[in-house]
Amino acid sequence: PINPDRLWASLAAMAEIGATAKGGSCRLALSDEDKAGRDLFVSWCEAAGCTVTVDRVGNIFARRPGSDPSLPPVVMGSHLDTQPTGGRFDGVFGVLAGLEVIRSLNDRGLATRHPVEVAVWTNEEGSRFSPPMMGSGVATGVFTLDEILDKIAQDGARLGDELVRTGYAGDAPVEHPMHAYLEAHIEQGPVLEVEEKEIGVVTGAQGQRWYEVTVTGVEAHAGPTPMRLRRDALVASARMVTAVQALGLETPGDACTTVGILDVHPHSRNVIPGRVFFTVDLRHPDAATLAGMDRRFRDAVAAIADEAGVTAEVADFWEFPPTPFDATLVKRVRDAAAGFGFSHRDIVSGAGHDAVYVAGKVPTAMVFIPCEDGISHNEVENIAPADGARGAAVLFEALVATAGA
Amino acid sequence: PINPDRLWASLAAMAEIGATAKGGSCRLALSDEDKAGRDLFVSWCEAAGCTVTVDRVGNIFARRPGSDPSLPPVVMGSHLDTQPTGGRFDGVFGVLAGLEVIRSLNDRGLATRHPVEVAVWTNEEGSRFSPPMMGSGVATGVFTLDEILDKIAQDGARLGDELVRTGYAGDAPVEHPMHAYLEAHIEQGPVLEVEEKEIGVVTGAQGQRWYEVTVTGVEAHAGPTPMRLRRDALVASARMVTAVQALGLETPGDACTTVGILDVHPHSRNVIPGRVFFTVDLRHPDAATLAGMDRRFRDAVAAIADEAGVTAEVADFWEFPPTPFDATLVKRVRDAAAGFGFSHRDIVSGAGHDAVYVAGKVPTAMVFIPCEDGISHNEVENIAPADGARGAAVLFEALVATAGA
Ligand SMILES: NC(=O)NCCC(=O)O
Ligand SMILES: NC(=O)NCCC(=O)O
Repeated sequence: PINPDRLWASLAAMAEIGATAKGGSCRLALSDEDKAGRDLFVSWCEAAGCTVTVDRVGNIFARRPGSDPSLPPVVMGSHLDTQPTGGRFDGVFGVLAGLEVIRSLNDRGLATRHPVEVAVWTNEEGSRFSPPMMGSGVATGVFTLDEILDKIAQDGARLGDELVRTGYAGDAPVEHPMHAYLEAHIEQGPVLEVEEKEIGVVTGAQGQRWYEVTVTGVEAHAGPTPMRLRRDALVASARMVTAVQALGLETPGDACTTVGILDVHPHSRNVIPGRVFFTVDLRHPDAATLAGMDRRFRDAVAAIADEAGVTAEVADFWEFPPTPFDATLVKRVRDAAAGFGFSHRDIVSGAGHDAVYVAGKVPTAMVFIPCEDGISHNEVENIAPADGARGAAVLFEALVATAGA
Repeated sequence: PINPDRLWASLAAMAEIGATAKGGSCRLALSDEDKAGRDLFVSWCEAAGCTVTVDRVGNIFARRPGSDPSLPPVVMGSHLDTQPTGGRFDGVFGVLAGLEVIRSLNDRGLATRHPVEVAVWTNEEGSRFSPPMMGSGVATGVFTLDEILDKIAQDGARLGDELVRTGYAGDAPVEHPMHAYLEAHIEQGPVLEVEEKEIGVVTGAQGQRWYEVTVTGVEAHAGPTPMRLRRDALVASARMVTAVQALGLETPGDACTTVGILDVHPHSRNVIPGRVFFTVDLRHPDAATLAGMDRRFRDAVAAIADEAGVTAEVADFWEFPPTPFDATLVKRVRDAAAGFGFSHRDIVSGAGHDAVYVAGKVPTAMVFIPCEDGISHNEVENIAPADGARGAAVLFEALVATAGA
């Protein structure tokens, strides 16, 4: 029901903005590149006859009217921001598949009862500004607008200032009425590819707990300070990184554990590190198991710090519980995949998505497509054009079934 | 023979330049603060009647004439640059003890046969620009002037440009004739304090080998990427940090092993690190043992990389072999300490010093004084004023014995 070549051409055009050496994209949230990507998207939506509004946290909504103006919209969407060395499809695919659905409705002159929208949520990645899923989090009341406007980037910029600078400090209220929400996305993992499934029917997302750990030892000279007298914050942190990995390997049922950032102070070749800061990301589909991981993680850090003669502070940074999606909408995605004869399976999302926050307020489902070697958050991230076309087709069917023909 | 109060007051005045919150100093090589410290030193030397010259790598020589102008100078000295969170005495003590010796010679109207100089060597610390001991290394032919002028700082600045900017791109040739070299320094370790010795008679310096390690894995999403499929560059690096520490603990005879810098790429909370860079510093007083440590270190890194499915490149960055000082000059230091009745012991320097490079060309010795808790390369670095006075007195006696009364 959709135009695969147009979808692919749009993905390619977007990928030129912030293109990286190894074929990926770098459009950090509210950077110049993110602004350019948003501007391009808005121009496409206006050309497709949509009305574009921007809310106070920079979320963009492009609306195609429905036949009953009193009804709230069925919203598709995802994000256009990327990781520092991000791929061309993470987030972008969901946004441009949504646009492709609207373009295809236009091609066929199809009217829907509900208005249909494509949303671009601000800062889903949580890399330049953290935590992730900020725009959808503000829209659904998880975060207050004020706390998010005051977030400071890794590069020192304030989020509210960057919204103004890039022209995306809109005036629409952040509460956005929605009838239902549908997000298409690459799987970002290997399951669909390994099992040779064309579509993932996402039943929900695993829970996440993020932490910040600060380890404090004693700075001293790397030469004349005997090994036994050292209180080396990096040596202790290295053991903690190993313990975090062991926790992921040993916890049954698809646990994931990652240290993504680690900063050493004072960062000098011949100084025993006196302070180390690192981040920890723990994930599990089961709430009780995730709670157990939280305890084991804290215990391991405390025991290692004790043994190494350093102190370690563990601060909670961000979390969300395992989140199921709406059974009716999930079934609609499954039925659409089956209707086309696409091979498919139910799957739990390993990543957080804007859909997770929206699911707390509005019936929500997601459509996954496979990605090459299961690799994402990497410049080499890739999909087969045919997989993109199948995902957009399933999104089209589920959208039409939900918005009413 | 020297004026302890004047010495202490000079140390205090210098410490005000780049003073840090916790009572230390930050005068990174060729920063604004380093320039201010050098300017203050030069003004003091001129007030003491010295002639000041600056060579092409920014080394400063303040000369008090000798009675025989045909003779090369006996040089005292050290450095004024500090670590990012450095102390008030590391380097500074040797420079200002040298100045105090010249001031005391002036007070007494004492003439020496050889001219007497105080040297301030450029960038001894090797923190902002690396490796360490650059100024003394150029003066003694270990490095070429051109390679050092082209060194790039952690902050991106070029050393040659920073010399010009701070006004220390002198025109004196880098080869500086010297009759002998004497450097006073804080021990930077705990030995003298623990053994309650007032003076360390430094017989030489242990050898050092510095490396840069780059570990390359595969960036991927922290959520949907199963633990068993990861090639996490930080997890592998953490094991290498642990192995480097184990090497220091297990090698007999005062081995020291340190990872001081570790940088994670792409530095995002929810991305499995694809690349880690870290520095390694291995030290031992015995050349054969140090060579064995080099082999074990390389083997450990290779084995861990192999097991973790990542690659690791080890690059040699800097090294010098265990370096003995001149027996005659060392005896002069020992005799001076004994003559004053100061408790003393022979000691091998755990740190590199400008004296190590100078020792390759010119008879050299060092005088150590204790520092509080053996702590250095730390803002809390401290000495007892009486220890400083004793060290300057020993320096005075050894200088006079060498320069000829
Ligand atoms: N898809 C994605 O990267 N979302 C950000 C939150 C997460 O790391 O799961
Ligand atoms: N004293 C000192 O820190 N020298 C720099 C070279 C070294 O780290 O040993």
